[in-house]
Amino acid sequence: MSTPASKLPPHPLRPLTEEELQRARDVVVKELGSDGVVLFFRSIYVDEPKRDDLVQFLIAEHAGQAPTTTPPRQVKVLFDLIKDGKPQLSEAVVDIGAGEVRNNKTFPAYCQTSYTATEFGQFYDICVASDMFKEALEEFSLPEGFSITIDPWPYGGLDPDEDIPRYMQGLVYARNAANNNPDSNHYGYPLPIIPVMDFVTKKLIRVDRLATGGTGDSLYPSPKADEPKKLFGHGKSAEYAPELLDQPLRADVKPIDITQPEGASFKVHSDNLVEWQKWRFRVGFTPREGAVLHDVCYDGRPVLYRLSFSEMTVPYGDPRPPFHRKQAFDFGDGGIGRAANNLKLGCDCLGAIHYMSSVVTDSEGKPETAQNVVCLHEQDNGIGWKHTNFRTNRAVVTRLREFVIQFVATLANYEYVFAYKLDTAGGISVETRATGIVSVVPIDEGKTSGYGNVVFPGVLAQNHQHIFAVRIDPSIDSYSNTDTAVVLEETHAIPMNPETNPFGNGYEVRRQKVESAMYADAEPKLNRVVKMENVNKQNPISGKNVGYKFAPNATQLMLADENSTQAARAPYAKHHLWVTGYRDEELWAAGEFTNQSRKEEGGVKAMVERGDWFVDEPSASSEKGQRSSPVVWNVFGLTHNPRVEDWPVMPVEIHQFHIRPADFFTSNPALDMPGRAGADVAPEELPKGAETTSKRHSATLSKLFSWKKESK
Amino acid sequence: MSTPASKLPPHPLRPLTEEELQRARDVVVKELGSDGVVLFFRSIYVDEPKRDDLVQFLIAEHAGQAPTTTPPRQVKVLFDLIKDGKPQLSEAVVDIGAGEVRNNKTFPAYCQTSYTATEFGQFYDICVASDMFKEALEEFSLPEGFSITIDPWPYGGLDPDEDIPRYMQGLVYARNAANNNPDSNHYGYPLPIIPVMDFVTKKLIRVDRLATGGTGDSLYPSPKADEPKKLFGHGKSAEYAPELLDQPLRADVKPIDITQPEGASFKVHSDNLVEWQKWRFRVGFTPREGAVLHDVCYDGRPVLYRLSFSEMTVPYGDPRPPFHRKQAFDFGDGGIGRAANNLKLGCDCLGAIHYMSSVVTDSEGKPETAQNVVCLHEQDNGIGWKHTNFRTNRAVVTRLREFVIQFVATLANYEYVFAYKLDTAGGISVETRATGIVSVVPIDEGKTSGYGNVVFPGVLAQNHQHIFAVRIDPSIDSYSNTDTAVVLEETHAIPMNPETNPFGNGYEVRRQKVESAMYADAEPKLNRVVKMENVNKQNPISGKNVGYKFAPNATQLMLADENSTQAARAPYAKHHLWVTGYRDEELWAAGEFTNQSRKEEGGVKAMVERGDWFVDEPSASSEKGQRSSPVVWNVFGLTHNPRVEDWPVMPVEIHQFHIRPADFFTSNPALDMPGRAGADVAPEELPKGAETTSKRHSATLSKLFSWKKESK
Repeated sequence: MSTPASKLPPHPLRPLTEEELQRARDVVVKELGSDGVVLFFRSIYVDEPKRDDLVQFLIAEHAGQAPTTTPPRQVKVLFDLIKDGKPQLSEAVVDIGAGEVRNNKTFPAYCQTSYTATEFGQFYDICVASDMFKEALEEFSLPEGFSITIDPWPYGGLDPDEDIPRYMQGLVYARNAANNNPDSNHYGYPLPIIPVMDFVTKKLIRVDRLATGGTGDSLYPSPKADEPKKLFGHGKSAEYAPELLDQPLRADVKPIDITQPEGASFKVHSDNLVEWQKWRFRVGFTPREGAVLHDVCYDGRPVLYRLSFSEMTVPYGDPRPPFHRKQAFDFGDGGIGRAANNLKLGCDCLGAIHYMSSVVTDSEGKPETAQNVVCLHEQDNGIGWKHTNFRTNRAVVTRLREFVIQFVATLANYEYVFAYKLDTAGGISVETRATGIVSVVPIDEGKTSGYGNVVFPGVLAQNHQHIFAVRIDPSIDSYSNTDTAVVLEETHAIPMNPETNPFGNGYEVRRQKVESAMYADAEPKLNRVVKMENVNKQNPISGKNVGYKFAPNATQLMLADENSTQAARAPYAKHHLWVTGYRDEELWAAGEFTNQSRKEEGGVKAMVERGDWFVDEPSASSEKGQRSSPVVWNVFGLTHNPRVEDWPVMPVEIHQFHIRPADFFTSNPALDMPGRAGADVAPEELPKGAETTSKRHSATLSKLFSWKKESK
Repeated sequence: MSTPASKLPPHPLRPLTEEELQRARDVVVKELGSDGVVLFFRSIYVDEPKRDDLVQFLIAEHAGQAPTTTPPRQVKVLFDLIKDGKPQLSEAVVDIGAGEVRNNKTFPAYCQTSYTATEFGQFYDICVASDMFKEALEEFSLPEGFSITIDPWPYGGLDPDEDIPRYMQGLVYARNAANNNPDSNHYGYPLPIIPVMDFVTKKLIRVDRLATGGTGDSLYPSPKADEPKKLFGHGKSAEYAPELLDQPLRADVKPIDITQPEGASFKVHSDNLVEWQKWRFRVGFTPREGAVLHDVCYDGRPVLYRLSFSEMTVPYGDPRPPFHRKQAFDFGDGGIGRAANNLKLGCDCLGAIHYMSSVVTDSEGKPETAQNVVCLHEQDNGIGWKHTNFRTNRAVVTRLREFVIQFVATLANYEYVFAYKLDTAGGISVETRATGIVSVVPIDEGKTSGYGNVVFPGVLAQNHQHIFAVRIDPSIDSYSNTDTAVVLEETHAIPMNPETNPFGNGYEVRRQKVESAMYADAEPKLNRVVKMENVNKQNPISGKNVGYKFAPNATQLMLADENSTQAARAPYAKHHLWVTGYRDEELWAAGEFTNQSRKEEGGVKAMVERGDWFVDEPSASSEKGQRSSPVVWNVFGLTHNPRVEDWPVMPVEIHQFHIRPADFFTSNPALDMPGRAGADVAPEELPKGAETTSKRHSATLSKLFSWKKESK
């Protein structure tokens, strides 16, 4: 018997409220603050309960019953405790109900947390006021009306002999301020200097000069000339804002309207529970990950406990120093949630859209709203399934519907569009799109370089890679720790032989259960597939374990030399697949502290070395490890050697992988999709000879029979 | 000065008319027919002019001038000349204007052409009337009301000792006729026999019996039992037609309406010229290939001379004879154009759609119309490009628009959706979707098998592959034979070293020009990319050759043993990339005659062995070869080890590859796309908290400025 909703406690995964944020802050101030101490707040967000506790709640929730226990509502507060000008990074867990700090972690000095928007925003003013920077600028002569603009960046990986406090570097550009438009594109005018700031003392400590040669030239900058170097004299425009373009916009793009006149098929509850077409899940949002999917269930059956983007790194392949330090980790150095766009400002989403906002903190611990950072909508993606009986010419066809949870982050020059797409055939797709502006440096005019591509006079777009990690915590038809297993499956040729393969056409499928933490690479030539299965539930038709599967794409992974700092900071980026043992809070493929790291700590490599195992009797066990349930990480890369077409803003590069049911269901889960759930309405003008299908077809049997008669 | 349109001759690539078809037939009858001779017509279609001739016409066309010469209008007629009951396959080329046969080819007897629908349609009646078949059926006892249904198939590859005339095999099923619905799904009830017919004599020659065991059982069928074997007693339903489902349709799928209230942005001319968003191209349609794109130009610049799907083969991986002969070549054994669906009967396409029909022949040489076999429409595909200036929060974002040319073919049980998608960023995507019904055979109830998956009681869906070939004939910014080159580009790591890579982050791009016909495999781990470039035109910004590129996907290719007949018939299916020398009419990756072939002849393997070369001074040349221009073939596979979710009709499996500009343009070609070319209209009911963007935004500057103010 279900418990009335009014008697059910609030859900532990419900979004943070302003009141909770303020309470958490106040508790931290009260318990950890003192006279002479300044608190600088970085993140305040919901502390997800331990999985064992949350699972008890979810099981009761799905049974429609009140849970026997509810995890306490806790909030994480990441902040600096600054005493005598020296910041101590701290992470407090606050029990909101009790109003008490439950735990306060501090970290070694070399662990550098991400930069907040506030911190990034401080760089410009300090830099341009600095005498050291002004002196560095004297090397150059800019055209009339050009003003300096600086993009603040994480410092990147430390050189072997560097042992430094918190640094920030800046990439310097000039903007044509004469056109009176603050969105004039400064990336067309890069300067060959990189100022470096000590972020604790807030002082510039040096200005690196950059090599600007081409093929055959030195890796190192030329000496300063006697006279100031004249820059940007070509007078060309690199604009992208439509009012600044030197060409007219296309006038013949007729609108496409996507509407849902009967409303949308999805429901979003106030605690961020979402229901759509047998899918049921919760949307979280964190400052580091952006949108996260929790407790993803289909038709009441659990599929994924948690799905999230975990990390991405963008190593640059230009060997000239200091470009080896162009290697941001956009999750760990900044935070994708912090960088998320307000999606109502542009046409990021089309159709009947639900926007989600998120409560975040400012640096004083006061609540702000990150507006419309996630958009939800459903869309059509072409034919879902079709069959025509050639004897009768009867076509039965339905569409593939998708539900999209999307967020977009801006990291200085680059944009990334992240989307989870659930579909009516029980599938989950994970998509990333890279767009925005490629990172550029100056190159002597007339030269070309193997380190990148000239995309504008005097401007080199450097070669680089983007390598992403997605974390998949499966709960296949069960929340139990011991039910879900990971299996690698491959399809192999068999040699022709009279006994088992007389005509040589046979092939075989081989399976290998993952018994303990490991890594592997994609191998599509062997059709290598990762299956997440419930070892205790079999499909009644096929007899096989119910499961979900995906094929990791064999993208190019990190090219940096094994001995380089770039590679040491991101071993995750060297393999497509990692399977590690579940531990609460272990969410970061490259470890918790990527900013200014020398090497990856606490990332997937360490998780594998720890050696957790997933079976009762592992063939080998590790002292540091334990029996655990598997967490799956998919890593994929995009090697980006820029084209001229990527300038000034690049058309999207799209990557997708698909997690699809594998004997989870007893037939095609989309079999009950109605055909023609949609109509084509006659536009006023169609091309000559075009037809319209203007009748709305309902999904009733009678309409189907009458349609069937039309087809004869 | 442009010639007035009225003075321009009709385009050589214009579609075939009924009058032309009839004229071609009449000429063939008159010149090649005689008393006592029967002509059986297979295909009548436009004979595309030799490329050297057509290019002259295209150059004049694009210059707006009358051509100096126009190729004669010719039509190909493929037919059997049957004398004394013996068919002689013939291919005549008819000059329509002159009313004369220009060429008549005949072929060796072992060259078996494709089956027409008429031929496939003959199998059932002959088979069920045959005593041999009736006797074979006596082995079985079917439930009351079940009637026999047969899917006719090509015979497949010949065994080494087979030397036969034209054969056809049939896959036998039973349909539950008691439910009075001719679309009741017979695939749920496979019988373990395969009748084989001599198609010349139209007599059944044998009935093969099939093994029905599971793991550990023999490769060969058990002996007949004394009593008839009772089949299909489980009483379960395998239906997919909505009126026959044993579950209700989803009632909560709200419609998504896609409309273009100001009309569509594309124009289709009566000669099948299509213009959309700077793209200009012609759509052809042939009985073998379905839709073909000709003379694809962007903004007046040629990109591809011809783009088409060339072949696909579906080898089955069940080693038990006779399943090695389940290996159809859907282009060469039947013809994708012949099998193309009428797309108005279902919701195959959504939006403002233009349908194209095609004139085809019946077996008497009379014209028929293949109705609505191609649909054209534009669609939205999410964010095209975006950048937000973090200082001002000004987001500039435009959508990615695509133009879709789509056709769907039914090959007995399977469906394939083929689509070309052109986009507003100058890209061309080639997409295939596999759907329809997997091929199944009986399996003893309660057993499982490594040769496939049990998807229904007593029904095994056999493991198989689908391997496609797409033919790309590039004309990169030029129609000249000597301008377009193919280059393989890879991205390689460089070892850390003090001279060229002191910090180990550097990597390099390596290029290798394809100088003569060759094959290669995809290698995404090296970011292997195929570039098609114009060696005589450089991008003024980067200095590199203008070009288009694609990365072949590293899909699993044909697994059959090298020594098998399956492999010998399809060497094309063993490599992802083939680059061959252009020869007129050479369109078939697996050769012209695949039906019942023993090995591939005249396919890409032979083209490579011929050794054409693409440069003036090749490092090695071949006596058989010649200086030519490169044609590129991309081969990709889908290894399909069926899931239970693939039953009774499978959700689409989607494959795409993308041909994108590479320094062809001097900036992002979609820079001039207007933002918000589309509007979100408020639906009547939205989920609580959902927002609507109900204002229509025009693309004028003033609206953009006012929108910009809103965002502050």
